[in-house]
Amino acid sequence: MKSSNNLHVSFFSYRFYITIFACFEGTHVMIFIGFGFLMTFLKKYCYSALGFNWFLAALVIQWALLCQSFYHMQDNIIYITKESLLEADIMSATVLITFGAVLGLASGLQLLFIAIVEVAVACLNFWLVADIFKAADVGGSIAIHAFGAYFGLGASWALRSRKTKSDTPTATPTVDLNGPSYNSDVTAMIGSIFLWIYWPSFNSGLTNSNAEYQRAVINTYLSLAAATVTTFVMSSVVSKHQGRLDMVHVQNSTLAGGVAVGSVCNMFIGAGGAVAIGIGAGLLSVLGYRYLTPLLTKLGVPDTCGVNNLHGMPGIFSGLLTVLFAALATKEEYGSDLTGVFGAMSDDGTGRTAANQALNQFFALLVTIVVSTVGGIITGLLARAPILEPLEDHEKYDDEVNWELP
Amino acid sequence: MKSSNNLHVSFFSYRFYITIFACFEGTHVMIFIGFGFLMTFLKKYCYSALGFNWFLAALVIQWALLCQSFYHMQDNIIYITKESLLEADIMSATVLITFGAVLGLASGLQLLFIAIVEVAVACLNFWLVADIFKAADVGGSIAIHAFGAYFGLGASWALRSRKTKSDTPTATPTVDLNGPSYNSDVTAMIGSIFLWIYWPSFNSGLTNSNAEYQRAVINTYLSLAAATVTTFVMSSVVSKHQGRLDMVHVQNSTLAGGVAVGSVCNMFIGAGGAVAIGIGAGLLSVLGYRYLTPLLTKLGVPDTCGVNNLHGMPGIFSGLLTVLFAALATKEEYGSDLTGVFGAMSDDGTGRTAANQALNQFFALLVTIVVSTVGGIITGLLARAPILEPLEDHEKYDDEVNWELP
Amino acid sequence: MKSSNNLHVSFFSYRFYITIFACFEGTHVMIFIGFGFLMTFLKKYCYSALGFNWFLAALVIQWALLCQSFYHMQDNIIYITKESLLEADIMSATVLITFGAVLGLASGLQLLFIAIVEVAVACLNFWLVADIFKAADVGGSIAIHAFGAYFGLGASWALRSRKTKSDTPTATPTVDLNGPSYNSDVTAMIGSIFLWIYWPSFNSGLTNSNAEYQRAVINTYLSLAAATVTTFVMSSVVSKHQGRLDMVHVQNSTLAGGVAVGSVCNMFIGAGGAVAIGIGAGLLSVLGYRYLTPLLTKLGVPDTCGVNNLHGMPGIFSGLLTVLFAALATKEEYGSDLTGVFGAMSDDGTGRTAANQALNQFFALLVTIVVSTVGGIITGLLARAPILEPLEDHEKYDDEVNWELP
Repeated sequence: MKSSNNLHVSFFSYRFYITIFACFEGTHVMIFIGFGFLMTFLKKYCYSALGFNWFLAALVIQWALLCQSFYHMQDNIIYITKESLLEADIMSATVLITFGAVLGLASGLQLLFIAIVEVAVACLNFWLVADIFKAADVGGSIAIHAFGAYFGLGASWALRSRKTKSDTPTATPTVDLNGPSYNSDVTAMIGSIFLWIYWPSFNSGLTNSNAEYQRAVINTYLSLAAATVTTFVMSSVVSKHQGRLDMVHVQNSTLAGGVAVGSVCNMFIGAGGAVAIGIGAGLLSVLGYRYLTPLLTKLGVPDTCGVNNLHGMPGIFSGLLTVLFAALATKEEYGSDLTGVFGAMSDDGTGRTAANQALNQFFALLVTIVVSTVGGIITGLLARAPILEPLEDHEKYDDEVNWELP
Repeated sequence: MKSSNNLHVSFFSYRFYITIFACFEGTHVMIFIGFGFLMTFLKKYCYSALGFNWFLAALVIQWALLCQSFYHMQDNIIYITKESLLEADIMSATVLITFGAVLGLASGLQLLFIAIVEVAVACLNFWLVADIFKAADVGGSIAIHAFGAYFGLGASWALRSRKTKSDTPTATPTVDLNGPSYNSDVTAMIGSIFLWIYWPSFNSGLTNSNAEYQRAVINTYLSLAAATVTTFVMSSVVSKHQGRLDMVHVQNSTLAGGVAVGSVCNMFIGAGGAVAIGIGAGLLSVLGYRYLTPLLTKLGVPDTCGVNNLHGMPGIFSGLLTVLFAALATKEEYGSDLTGVFGAMSDDGTGRTAANQALNQFFALLVTIVVSTVGGIITGLLARAPILEPLEDHEKYDDEVNWELP
Repeated sequence: MKSSNNLHVSFFSYRFYITIFACFEGTHVMIFIGFGFLMTFLKKYCYSALGFNWFLAALVIQWALLCQSFYHMQDNIIYITKESLLEADIMSATVLITFGAVLGLASGLQLLFIAIVEVAVACLNFWLVADIFKAADVGGSIAIHAFGAYFGLGASWALRSRKTKSDTPTATPTVDLNGPSYNSDVTAMIGSIFLWIYWPSFNSGLTNSNAEYQRAVINTYLSLAAATVTTFVMSSVVSKHQGRLDMVHVQNSTLAGGVAVGSVCNMFIGAGGAVAIGIGAGLLSVLGYRYLTPLLTKLGVPDTCGVNNLHGMPGIFSGLLTVLFAALATKEEYGSDLTGVFGAMSDDGTGRTAANQALNQFFALLVTIVVSTVGGIITGLLARAPILEPLEDHEKYDDEVNWELP
């Protein structure tokens, strides 16, 4: 019988090897194609969007390999595995979300500075969420999406030049470049759809059992499908003009379903729950783009890609859902998966209570928002140093500054 | 020895888990990137092509999960598995093929109505083909491709407005928008090539054994390669102008090899047979685009993407090939795969005869063509209801109607 | 215990089945999307780049299946497996690299002729490298990348018309079409990034053990990341104009890390070694684009895509690295992987010595460069036959010659 036991153990480790490989390739496509092309929607910032996305991600995956290892080193040796490469890919998403908030507003050197600082802060916050609060956050909606978004909004607020603020508080200066062209909207869809396709890989990459992995994939898939349908309906409903659809909603709010379900996708939320979460995310995101982003811009917090609507609010939504589902978690339902999903609870009842876990989930979310916002503001203020060559108003949203153009 | 047997059983089930995962991701790319971008070839209908493709597919995968389950429910519970998600993806292909036939000719509400009705009819027809006739159709060339194409042509014929028909019978009204631009032809190639790359996953996704799966992948690959070479040669041969190539052929006829081999790709057709089928499909498809589509348009059956040449005729070709290869099937050749490939035949000789299976294949094809054409015509006629906001002639092939444009 | 042994054997064969499947799909994306879109950077040659890329690759994978089989046939039967399909895909890369050198300079018939001859010569050279010299070249940097590049430069030199050479030796005639547009540079990035993402699959596809496979993936990944960061820094450093970045470098030199690490990625080069190789490749490639390509063009060797900087010099670099790491190889470090990595060495000490292996690596590189350059020149001279319809100067870099344009 020992041989049979070994067999099962081997099977599990084997399966996860394959799963991680598949998730790794999918996440890789999301980071480099997905984020890169999604940000090409600006009419004259495509080179910068693609180029800086690639540069930052390639830099961050190396830097994050080091930063994350500080918390996991054994005998002062850093082991590089497919799993640590996957985590490095996921960490680079944080930086790219922040890049989305300040897209077209920061110089290459400023982006470089922000990326390096942010990874260090994000790894610290990740350690707080995962190792101190032991919060469930399998798809990273708290520690990756919400963190990246509020770090970005903090930096965006801090980066504004005073002059811009006082002269034309309601409008971005080179307002004609802050928008899409017909072609740039089409190339942005490449990014958007590839993000959508591989999102189930992203959310399920760090699951701990086969059953958990299956739930994560199927729940993410259903939530994304529901958010997509909701986005089209809502975009038409809130339209300024005869029910016409808005490409900004289609490119972004469709993905909010993946963020909103992210932290709870491996829990027992049911197919109906997944669809409901997707609908909620689509609603939240479209309304955010339509009413909140213009207001934020007026208040001096530009958000070029609307990361608050795609990553910020849906990330908070997902964080609050973890509080709910942690409070409802029972060891009867989860069985041996309980520890896999909620690191500090266990199926023999010796770990945390559900209420205790729910409280920890809440604090993990709260700490993330505070750390990211404050971190973003401080980093943004530091990034205004003249040595990082801040952009003049007329240089914003323009490839001309950084690229040899044809 | 029991342990060893278990091992083999586990291996097989495991392998199929992986296969289905890989096929699922590949099919997902085909549906959302492949079909979506292939239809961006029209110069001013890219937003609608990408947007409606996404909306319809996201809606249909949810609706198809329900519709298909009616035939497979146990104890009134619907089980959602990776396999049922894969089948839902495949079902959405049917709707997207139909969308290709009426691209630019139907309003958003009409498309929504057609999609909802079509899925119900297609699930019924799928049940007839698979469960009543027990016909072999692993890649869905009969029940997906031919069905989608003739449903689309039926709807396209029924949707025409009378006025257009009598006034200008030979030309589409806003004829200047019914064509590509240089850029839109390039983005359409994204869709076309991704469809081509993942077609082996599509055709092999529902195979029942490892050997069958391998045959399906390799035969599809060879047929696609042969169809591609044939397409370039034929496009030059039938050219109106000094042997120049036509992008429409390159984008579409290259894929006809995947459709034509679809229903027989898991059978013993041999590498030579796969190449011959690909050559035949390439010929058929290019000649169809060159001579048949203009004729059909003149006869009042517009077919914007030429789905008759990519999915319709190659689907019928594939259906007829199943009749041939079913008639030739012997239990010596197929062994234990016989039941996997032909559901009602078996290797112990107790099932159908080869002749009987061939006859059932033929009827499955015939029924599919009749059900799809009649279903399409009726759905198209119903879709002319004013509440679904049919398009005026000047609104056709134009994003302006549906989208906020930059 | 026999059952347990069988288990392990099965596991390994199983794993490789999966690995080959994943690598096959990744390589497929590289060949058809990657190379195809990378070459769309010319403003009016996108149709030809995508179309000829597809046509040539689809033809070559069939032709290479035959050519390669001549060296592996048993009982005069050609067995087609997933592995042989993967090798055929890899062989088509050789032809596509050559296509990059003469992009816009050769007619369709000339390309067809070059492709057919090149595959035969490349299979011969591959046999020399792999079976005669038994050289380590897992990622094909010697036999695929360097071969394709120098075959292409040879053909490019031979294809020039005399007249062009004497009249305007320093400039390509239709110089206004020999460059990108804003849109074509964006679509070229689709190809470039997909090549980058799946390069680890390409380099690891033909490894012989799990450990070797893991090293190949991780080393390639790190080298690519390092080359990418280096490319951005160097592009700014050598800029003609205020530190602006050049899209040509970003699209190409980022990938040089994958070529340079290719032949040694399965060896014990260490994470630091992989990063150092990537930095070296980025340096070499950017400097090549900035200073060497203009010089070569002046000397009568046009190189439209700069394949010398992406595939040629990094390929030689990788070849020289194999000499170094073969000389350093010990059976203590490699253990049972020694034979897998270096085919003629073995862990029981009965095979070649390290010095002997290093010498063979050097000769394999030398022979490849000679065979490819001479082969390219002869093929290019033959391709000037009027029956292959060489292009007039005014027809170069222009889709007009080959395509029905909108």
